[in-house]
Amino acid sequence: MSVTPPQSVDLVIEARWVVPVEPHAVVLEQHAVVVDADRIVALLPIAEARAAYAPRERVELGEHALIPGLVNSHTHNPMTLLRGLADDLPLMTWLQEHIWPAEAKVIGPEFVRDGVELAVAEMLRGGTTCANENYFFPDAIGATYRKLGFRALVGLPVIEFPTAWAKTQDEYFERAGEVHDSFLGDPLVGTAFAPHAPYTVSDASFERIRVLADQLDIPVHLHLHETAHEVEEEKKKSGLRPFQRMQKLGLVNDRLIAVHMTQATDGEIAACAEAGVSVVHCPESNLKLASGFCPAEKFRRAGVNLAIATDGCASNNDLDMFGEMRTAAILAKAVAQDAAAFDAASALRAGTLNAARAMGLEEQIGSIEPGKQADLAAVRLSDLETQPLFHVASQLVYATGRHQVTDVWIAGRRKLAGRELVGMDLEAMLARTRQWRERIAAV
Amino acid sequence: MSVTPPQSVDLVIEARWVVPVEPHAVVLEQHAVVVDADRIVALLPIAEARAAYAPRERVELGEHALIPGLVNSHTHNPMTLLRGLADDLPLMTWLQEHIWPAEAKVIGPEFVRDGVELAVAEMLRGGTTCANENYFFPDAIGATYRKLGFRALVGLPVIEFPTAWAKTQDEYFERAGEVHDSFLGDPLVGTAFAPHAPYTVSDASFERIRVLADQLDIPVHLHLHETAHEVEEEKKKSGLRPFQRMQKLGLVNDRLIAVHMTQATDGEIAACAEAGVSVVHCPESNLKLASGFCPAEKFRRAGVNLAIATDGCASNNDLDMFGEMRTAAILAKAVAQDAAAFDAASALRAGTLNAARAMGLEEQIGSIEPGKQADLAAVRLSDLETQPLFHVASQLVYATGRHQVTDVWIAGRRKLAGRELVGMDLEAMLARTRQWRERIAAV
Repeated sequence: MSVTPPQSVDLVIEARWVVPVEPHAVVLEQHAVVVDADRIVALLPIAEARAAYAPRERVELGEHALIPGLVNSHTHNPMTLLRGLADDLPLMTWLQEHIWPAEAKVIGPEFVRDGVELAVAEMLRGGTTCANENYFFPDAIGATYRKLGFRALVGLPVIEFPTAWAKTQDEYFERAGEVHDSFLGDPLVGTAFAPHAPYTVSDASFERIRVLADQLDIPVHLHLHETAHEVEEEKKKSGLRPFQRMQKLGLVNDRLIAVHMTQATDGEIAACAEAGVSVVHCPESNLKLASGFCPAEKFRRAGVNLAIATDGCASNNDLDMFGEMRTAAILAKAVAQDAAAFDAASALRAGTLNAARAMGLEEQIGSIEPGKQADLAAVRLSDLETQPLFHVASQLVYATGRHQVTDVWIAGRRKLAGRELVGMDLEAMLARTRQWRERIAAV
Repeated sequence: MSVTPPQSVDLVIEARWVVPVEPHAVVLEQHAVVVDADRIVALLPIAEARAAYAPRERVELGEHALIPGLVNSHTHNPMTLLRGLADDLPLMTWLQEHIWPAEAKVIGPEFVRDGVELAVAEMLRGGTTCANENYFFPDAIGATYRKLGFRALVGLPVIEFPTAWAKTQDEYFERAGEVHDSFLGDPLVGTAFAPHAPYTVSDASFERIRVLADQLDIPVHLHLHETAHEVEEEKKKSGLRPFQRMQKLGLVNDRLIAVHMTQATDGEIAACAEAGVSVVHCPESNLKLASGFCPAEKFRRAGVNLAIATDGCASNNDLDMFGEMRTAAILAKAVAQDAAAFDAASALRAGTLNAARAMGLEEQIGSIEPGKQADLAAVRLSDLETQPLFHVASQLVYATGRHQVTDVWIAGRRKLAGRELVGMDLEAMLARTRQWRERIAAV
């Protein structure tokens, strides 16, 4: 009889519950996730893990659910520094009298660096391990994510007017190419094209983006059908709905990350499903800006890859993916007039694996499966606010607060330990945040 | 020159910010709230308070906003023990196959006592100091609130079929009278009539309630127009909308606490304003049960006293008034198609003073004013999730998590101190909660 000696690995995390997300709607009890270097090696019962592996570190989570790190598939994280600057205002007043003047005053590499750092701290403390970023100065943004060891796609902005980032269309594309190349092969940071929206980007730019996105093999991250107003204006201008114009320009394909989609005909929903478009639903931003109600359940039932995201802190005002999953799940029921719509397991999937798929990262993250990156979040469910506990997925989506996240790993490295940020200077960050507050309040 | 010696008082709370709620939308910086016995004596700048008062206890809240304790104006707190038992189900499946069978198995004085105790702990940890309760066994419920020193109105249930609480209509009214009398003169616990809903209560019972509520001078707490289905069914039966039937029966007056009102014509909204009806808006329950969208902003603009509440944990699944104010404020904007609707200060008022007014307690609680009861909550705003800070009310409603509540007082007594529950045995409570979980899961 031969006995295999235990295999040496970096880390074994033993949890009361593991929610792998794939397979769907499964909750494993008393399971262990085995991690070596940046990858998940195995997922198996604790007793079997103890027999088979000799970890350099073992973490016991006796009252926790271990879930895939949450994936925030649409953010403007530098704007975390504008949190709560101007609320309860009509969209145009908000933009023209508050957000744009503030941005004009402060935008630049330092602003985006400090905003992203604050956002990373907030995301980690809420169980989020990956962001789909969309803002100017993607070079400084990407460098910050890289330095902090946080996973992200940084958007390469394209917009039809001059900004602090680029003055001409040629410059937008030139700088996009440079930023893309500078992150090639980076284990955590990648890029996506980020044309702002159909109403701010020309056909010519969209055509360049279509060709280049294919060549570079990266997604196209686009605000689309955020409001009914936007749809009406485009119809007046081109005779087409923005989605139709994108179809005509060849953008409606499996690279497209269509953010918001509060307006969608049944035909558009079917076209998204057929073309493999990913739709990103930002329910709280849509509510707060009175943008409209995304027919999330219709998208989901049509087989569209539907993800959930917070949008930026200027319109949310947080990066709380637990809150967002909850709002998405309950709002979808009211919009669909069906209390059985968009169940908890589907919300959790939309906040993890579907978001990863939207970003082209479904082979690497979004679920707890051997071979994937070890991006993980531990959620303590023993708090009285999540007691009694009948169903883990229900509790995670409908009752859990993000402050119940205790530990987070990205690519196998601990980033949050017992709610403490690892390797980040919280006090210095808060001091810089207060300095930005003074500068912005003085605008 | 005469010098007045400092006045001896029980407690001075010094806070970075005080949000009194009345006057509306005011934030006071570096102010102190002076408390003696159960009452607020003064609200003034810290420096003046230090000169004028000699407190037996001084609390310094250098990074906090001090707000009136939140008032949850519609709860079924014993059902906290059913949190997450059955989610994502059609209403009738949920009720008939899960909630009712579970209740039938466990309902009684022990169940309501332990459920209310768990709820009180959750409410205190979330800054809530008063509940408008609606469940069977109000005697045991009221006794529990009294024992725990928590402020509440307990509903005196009336429903047109036999339950564990009462078998006949006469018995419902007899027991209602007994419970009412047993709390006469209690400083914290009062009563309200709680006829379940128009579709479960007869005209005869409503008529008795109208007369008795006037005699006893107590509110009438009623589920009304929760769903479109309910309105349609009543129209088939009586030819009237439920609200019209209540008008005919003389119930539409300033005693009425109309909960839900997802269906409301402009005429009904005007009638509520004219009659002094209070409307309680439970946005998360309405979304999760797919009940519909309350036109909250229309009620507010019409001058109706609009309050916010969580509803019970079986349909929410929490007692988080911060989350509920936030959902109310953002949902109202989307429903009204106006990003300027239902601003943060109004949400805070709806979760405090308007709720107090609905319960007939506006002279005693709901704002920080001299002469009122000292029901207060301290919210730490220095967490990175509420930084930078531009506007206190915005931050409280749109970014604050309930776990940022650090200290709570009810009638001048500290109930939460540095997030620790005062005088409650948390471990014993959680052990009992787990026992109930086993009994309920076995149904």
